[in-house]
Amino acid sequence: MNLTPRFSLRTGPRIKEITVTPIAVVDPPLLNAAGLHAPYALRTIVELVTDDGISGISEIPGNSDIDAALEASKPLLIGRDVFQLSEIRQVLVDHFGKDTAAQRGDAPWDQRKMVHIFSSIEVACLDIIGKVTGRPVVDLLGGKMRDRVPFSAYLFYKYEGAGGKLAFDIDPNAQGWAAARQASALNPAEIVAQAQAMCAEFGFQSIKLKGGVFEPRQEVDAMFALYEAFGPNVPLRVDPNALWKVETAIQYGREMEPILEYLEDPVRGQAAMAEVRKAIKTPLATNMCTTSFEDIPTSIAIGSEDIILSDHHFWGGLRSSMTLSGICETFGRGLSMHSNSHLGISLAAMVHLGAALPQVPYALDTHYPWQSDEVIVGGRFTFEEGSVLVPQEPGLGVELDRDALAALHQNYLECGLKKRDDEPEMQKKQPGWKFQAVRW
Amino acid sequence: MNLTPRFSLRTGPRIKEITVTPIAVVDPPLLNAAGLHAPYALRTIVELVTDDGISGISEIPGNSDIDAALEASKPLLIGRDVFQLSEIRQVLVDHFGKDTAAQRGDAPWDQRKMVHIFSSIEVACLDIIGKVTGRPVVDLLGGKMRDRVPFSAYLFYKYEGAGGKLAFDIDPNAQGWAAARQASALNPAEIVAQAQAMCAEFGFQSIKLKGGVFEPRQEVDAMFALYEAFGPNVPLRVDPNALWKVETAIQYGREMEPILEYLEDPVRGQAAMAEVRKAIKTPLATNMCTTSFEDIPTSIAIGSEDIILSDHHFWGGLRSSMTLSGICETFGRGLSMHSNSHLGISLAAMVHLGAALPQVPYALDTHYPWQSDEVIVGGRFTFEEGSVLVPQEPGLGVELDRDALAALHQNYLECGLKKRDDEPEMQKKQPGWKFQAVRW
Ligand SMILES: [Mg+2]
Ligand SMILES: [Mg+2]
Repeated sequence: MNLTPRFSLRTGPRIKEITVTPIAVVDPPLLNAAGLHAPYALRTIVELVTDDGISGISEIPGNSDIDAALEASKPLLIGRDVFQLSEIRQVLVDHFGKDTAAQRGDAPWDQRKMVHIFSSIEVACLDIIGKVTGRPVVDLLGGKMRDRVPFSAYLFYKYEGAGGKLAFDIDPNAQGWAAARQASALNPAEIVAQAQAMCAEFGFQSIKLKGGVFEPRQEVDAMFALYEAFGPNVPLRVDPNALWKVETAIQYGREMEPILEYLEDPVRGQAAMAEVRKAIKTPLATNMCTTSFEDIPTSIAIGSEDIILSDHHFWGGLRSSMTLSGICETFGRGLSMHSNSHLGISLAAMVHLGAALPQVPYALDTHYPWQSDEVIVGGRFTFEEGSVLVPQEPGLGVELDRDALAALHQNYLECGLKKRDDEPEMQKKQPGWKFQAVRW
Repeated sequence: MNLTPRFSLRTGPRIKEITVTPIAVVDPPLLNAAGLHAPYALRTIVELVTDDGISGISEIPGNSDIDAALEASKPLLIGRDVFQLSEIRQVLVDHFGKDTAAQRGDAPWDQRKMVHIFSSIEVACLDIIGKVTGRPVVDLLGGKMRDRVPFSAYLFYKYEGAGGKLAFDIDPNAQGWAAARQASALNPAEIVAQAQAMCAEFGFQSIKLKGGVFEPRQEVDAMFALYEAFGPNVPLRVDPNALWKVETAIQYGREMEPILEYLEDPVRGQAAMAEVRKAIKTPLATNMCTTSFEDIPTSIAIGSEDIILSDHHFWGGLRSSMTLSGICETFGRGLSMHSNSHLGISLAAMVHLGAALPQVPYALDTHYPWQSDEVIVGGRFTFEEGSVLVPQEPGLGVELDRDALAALHQNYLECGLKKRDDEPEMQKKQPGWKFQAVRW
């Protein structure tokens, strides 16, 4: 067969440079099952530059081990065509081996190496592919099913003040800080006040409380207080981060049946989740019990949850997240999205993915209102009625603010943190405090 | 956020014209569980042309009902951006409704409407996307994991002669006809001769026999004759097209354990497949028992097969087939590819998909050696050592030969066939012959 192509064949663009920049972002003292957020949340910014000078960027949770692995992966990646995403994944797996379940850890966040590395490279490659094809990333995932992606208010118990330099100390009009300005949120009334501040500023129409901090009675009371304050039209969720015993989850799960949209990770492990799921009517969601493709078969076999809270940083990128969506659709499971503290590059990726999903029945999670720093040109994303408009520019639609990146990297160098660990932070407030995998 | 895009945003290309052309392709008198191939196999060629004059093409099995539905879908599709594949699918589903399992039918081929329509539109859109981005379709599916895609020899019991105008009567050097030149293949010795002719011409290194024609003893004897002739290094498969009873499948399945790579659809239905699978060691493959995403949960729950033989015409396109691959990988199932009589546009799509799959542990099926017609510029694809080189041109890498298309459409008009039905063809040879869903 002899074809004369009518269109020129593009080979490449190929990866020429990879820059890995750890940054530290001011974070309020948010309480959670693992302890207390440190004054800075760590993120890693990855930039790929192609042989024809196109830049693609991504953002992942910061962890010096993963940063080191990313540095080590450079020789494997330099010279590769950004379209060869399956090959890039294979090369990385061949070199680093597959992640194991044990690497994930017991914390609410994920510590596996491969999924983070592949996510960072894939998202930056998709940013480049979008730029060379003149299409937003959502169009590389099958196209845009909605123009705006809805997020939920994400409430936290918190102490007064915040670590690092407070954005609103520097600029009283700083966005995204309404809830953080609150002195503290340590009881139902303060949680309601936090929700009101956050919803007023961002227009959120669903509310989630990060639980697993106080004994269940107090957190369940906070949920009923939210229901009292917001009424039946604002979907509510609570996430005890797997700290409850099965009998506790069943007791309080039943009590909250009339007021919850879903109950997130009430207990630890798929078997315990399946037990709770059989006993209560409220759907169960997870980002801790079914966290990888390897976990899916058991999840389906025993019915451990109704909704998987995906996270492209932990599931190996945006295309893998679309595959996860296909699996959920095939098996009648719901899909929504998990979050950790993050900036606008991650948010842009989440929004492109959220716009590409066939269905978004639940508003997605984001910690974004708790940060005030930003690393993208033009400053922070705005929310309209709790939703983010899908960027229409080619690629992710965000670009690195190099001055901001340098300043946030300086924060990283100065703060001395190397990976997230909420236990020692908590011990500063409560000496001797210890993380327990199952508490109540 | 105010961004000045550095790259221009492409809106569109948008679908401006859709041309649906039914064609009839000379087909030999191949025997199968459903009867006998008619003198012509029907295919439908779909061409989309964008507002900026770019053509994208695809090929699906011919069926006048599906052609009519494609015609009816034009108003839904004209004006849509070819990148909005999820939206296009949604619009089609909203209009036509989801396919039902009953629509599939009992025959070895699939008669569902939506999957065919969506496949034809999606593949043509990907052809266009490839052309506007300067990339082969494989690069739109995650990139190329191999440069050549292996196929298997596909043997058929057959009668002498062939319907329509025989390619080798017109041109003695016509490709792809070695096996069809054989007078007949109605016993083990003739099947071995057919395999030798086909492997000599195409270099195939795996062999499949389409069974379900004669009583099982004769077909099993043919498999042992192939094993004798080709030895242990040539993987062998037999496909009784679901005609065997469970006890027959277990008896002959056990007998063939030492010589089979896999056993394809020995019995009808997932429950029967699961029973056979428990009883024999040879892996089971299917393109008749698990044929849609709706079938997957039961397949996984009861373990009805080891390998799904996908077909992008029946699974809704190439991207859906990649999702199916992700599901198979997640659940430890193998994936390979089913075929019906087809020309080079379908083959190109199969090859791009085969090149994108993470793994290709089994050579794919193709009927291509049984056809001599072609509808693409430059004539028929060639095979090297049983494999097809992945086209490197943008898009599918094949273009319509408009003279050939017109001639094959004329065949369609003249032959009077409207959809595949092998029973009346068989009755011409064996009066009173009736299809039985389970025979032996
Ligand atoms: Mg959670
Ligand atoms: Mg078959």
